[in-house]
Amino acid sequence: MQAVPTHTDVIETDAVIVGAGPVGLFQIFELGLLEIRAHIVDSLAYPGGQCIELYPDKPIYDIPAVPVCTGKELTDNLLRQIEPFGATFHLGQEVTVVDKQDDGRFAVETSKGTRFLTKTVFIAGGVGSFQPRTLKVEGVEPFEGTQVHYRVKTPADFAGKHLLIIGGGDSALDWALNFCAANADGNPHKAESVILMHRRDDFRAAPASVAKMRALCDAHEMQLIIGQAVGIDERDGQLTGLKVAGNDGVTRVVPCDQVLTFFGLSPKLGPIADWGVALERKQVVVDTEKFETSVPGIFAVGDVNTYPGKKKLILSGFHEAALAAFGAAPHVFPDRRVHLQYTTTSPKLHKVLGVESPVFD
Amino acid sequence: MQAVPTHTDVIETDAVIVGAGPVGLFQIFELGLLEIRAHIVDSLAYPGGQCIELYPDKPIYDIPAVPVCTGKELTDNLLRQIEPFGATFHLGQEVTVVDKQDDGRFAVETSKGTRFLTKTVFIAGGVGSFQPRTLKVEGVEPFEGTQVHYRVKTPADFAGKHLLIIGGGDSALDWALNFCAANADGNPHKAESVILMHRRDDFRAAPASVAKMRALCDAHEMQLIIGQAVGIDERDGQLTGLKVAGNDGVTRVVPCDQVLTFFGLSPKLGPIADWGVALERKQVVVDTEKFETSVPGIFAVGDVNTYPGKKKLILSGFHEAALAAFGAAPHVFPDRRVHLQYTTTSPKLHKVLGVESPVFD
Repeated sequence: MQAVPTHTDVIETDAVIVGAGPVGLFQIFELGLLEIRAHIVDSLAYPGGQCIELYPDKPIYDIPAVPVCTGKELTDNLLRQIEPFGATFHLGQEVTVVDKQDDGRFAVETSKGTRFLTKTVFIAGGVGSFQPRTLKVEGVEPFEGTQVHYRVKTPADFAGKHLLIIGGGDSALDWALNFCAANADGNPHKAESVILMHRRDDFRAAPASVAKMRALCDAHEMQLIIGQAVGIDERDGQLTGLKVAGNDGVTRVVPCDQVLTFFGLSPKLGPIADWGVALERKQVVVDTEKFETSVPGIFAVGDVNTYPGKKKLILSGFHEAALAAFGAAPHVFPDRRVHLQYTTTSPKLHKVLGVESPVFD
Repeated sequence: MQAVPTHTDVIETDAVIVGAGPVGLFQIFELGLLEIRAHIVDSLAYPGGQCIELYPDKPIYDIPAVPVCTGKELTDNLLRQIEPFGATFHLGQEVTVVDKQDDGRFAVETSKGTRFLTKTVFIAGGVGSFQPRTLKVEGVEPFEGTQVHYRVKTPADFAGKHLLIIGGGDSALDWALNFCAANADGNPHKAESVILMHRRDDFRAAPASVAKMRALCDAHEMQLIIGQAVGIDERDGQLTGLKVAGNDGVTRVVPCDQVLTFFGLSPKLGPIADWGVALERKQVVVDTEKFETSVPGIFAVGDVNTYPGKKKLILSGFHEAALAAFGAAPHVFPDRRVHLQYTTTSPKLHKVLGVESPVFD
């Protein structure tokens, strides 16, 4: 009988990069030039970090030698640039544990149970991992995960229920339409009733979704409430509804079985605070020679770090990633001296990059 | 009678950038975002520095988010990026003097007599200014500028002379062909005789020029010698020829009136050494917070500077230029607090960049 690999198998590696935003991606490049192979982890389901999450289509003007690009173009170009290095991506999971071992390596673990044993760690966490913004209403916490949700894990859980869906973006609209769809459409997850609630009668979601929602309201298949949750209604330890302040100034109870809140994502430093690296106002303190943290072997690059003069600029993160790679090399190759070579002239780097070396005279 | 402006008029400005390589060019951008207008000086006749001088057509792979570009493309993109800021270029001249004045400003002067009075100076000198490589032969120095030349300032000076032109690149070939051309071509600068000398029978110059040169040699209109200068031949304080070691191991005297040597350019730190900034192994010492030198108000960015961890990478120069700009702001605007804003979201920066502010929801 063959051993079946499980998700608890430990991946041994030279470098784990925490965060796949632009600086984390470029860290792969700089490590790759030094022949250090990396695994990269991000809580989002796709690479690009803030650039993709917050401004995929908005122009950025201060990437050097790139007069203008969108967050998506920046990410795509970086992904193309790091292709030669074959880094392994572990997406949709957060690094929860970084723990120094007796042999100097770090045990790293993610929220999905992926485990690494690595010589170096690069924190490229940006402003933090993106977490759903929560419903800020007194008494709501005990119901989070049972009757109050910020994401839909198992749509079947909501079939046949009275739903109150809060938010004005695509997530709120899409789920409202989804749970409202008639069974005739073959939807196995139709809710008993759907109320969509938003603080104003103006939606960020796609106009087509908004039109569809309004049509369903007109047909009394769902209901739209303009208002804000101000409290909970509870009986026998069960959430029975939310208290909602309407635009008319009156507070009413909106009864429901389940609340789905889609207020978008907001960044949180998260578990990084527990890894033993020195922090200063929620940022990781580094030196400016290697961008190493207070824990040798753990580096921090990009918006997550701080040092005298620090500016949260993508171009600064690129520089930090380059110097951190050189700083990490002695941890990975204790017996090798690593020299700076230039991509324009080094046949060795051309080999690493998989490009042809031109003939120089 | 109106005063006629002369080249000795002093230009008052906020910033003078010394060196128009990629980092000097990007310095314009970072200063521009903070509304600091700059003048930029370079000893070369065109912007781009090393990138243009040494590898205009060679691929660079490590500009972040630019998987591959040539030195020329990098320069062109930077020139496009800094267009909104209208910096003034002063090319083909070297900054010779930087002298702190009593009022805290700097008197800056170039080899062409351009004079500035500026609040800040940014040394972006790269590996130094490019100077012609000289003829390394004993006794040659007293004749440099009179009978031994590294550039042709006034072609007429060489008309009717016996010329020895040394080198295997385009400059050597082009000038050899030029001074050899028959008077019938309307060439007023035809030499009496032209000898081209190169250390090997293999030329870096354009093949068409090489073919033309060989045809002229076949027609006895000029002569090609394979060999190297090893000494000078002198009579009554006049250079009368060079001693040349041929490939056959024999040293002969090659008589001539004028020697034109084209060995290409090599970088020299040059006058920077005299500006009072602390140096370390021919590099300018800076801090990593503002990239300021030992002289407040003088900053150094790119390959010319040194600090713990320094790597001579273009991407590091970009970061240094950004932080130097913020470091310079208090010198330029002593009463204003300057905050970091983002090009993606700041309407103020959009105005500075001359782009439209998108509407955010």
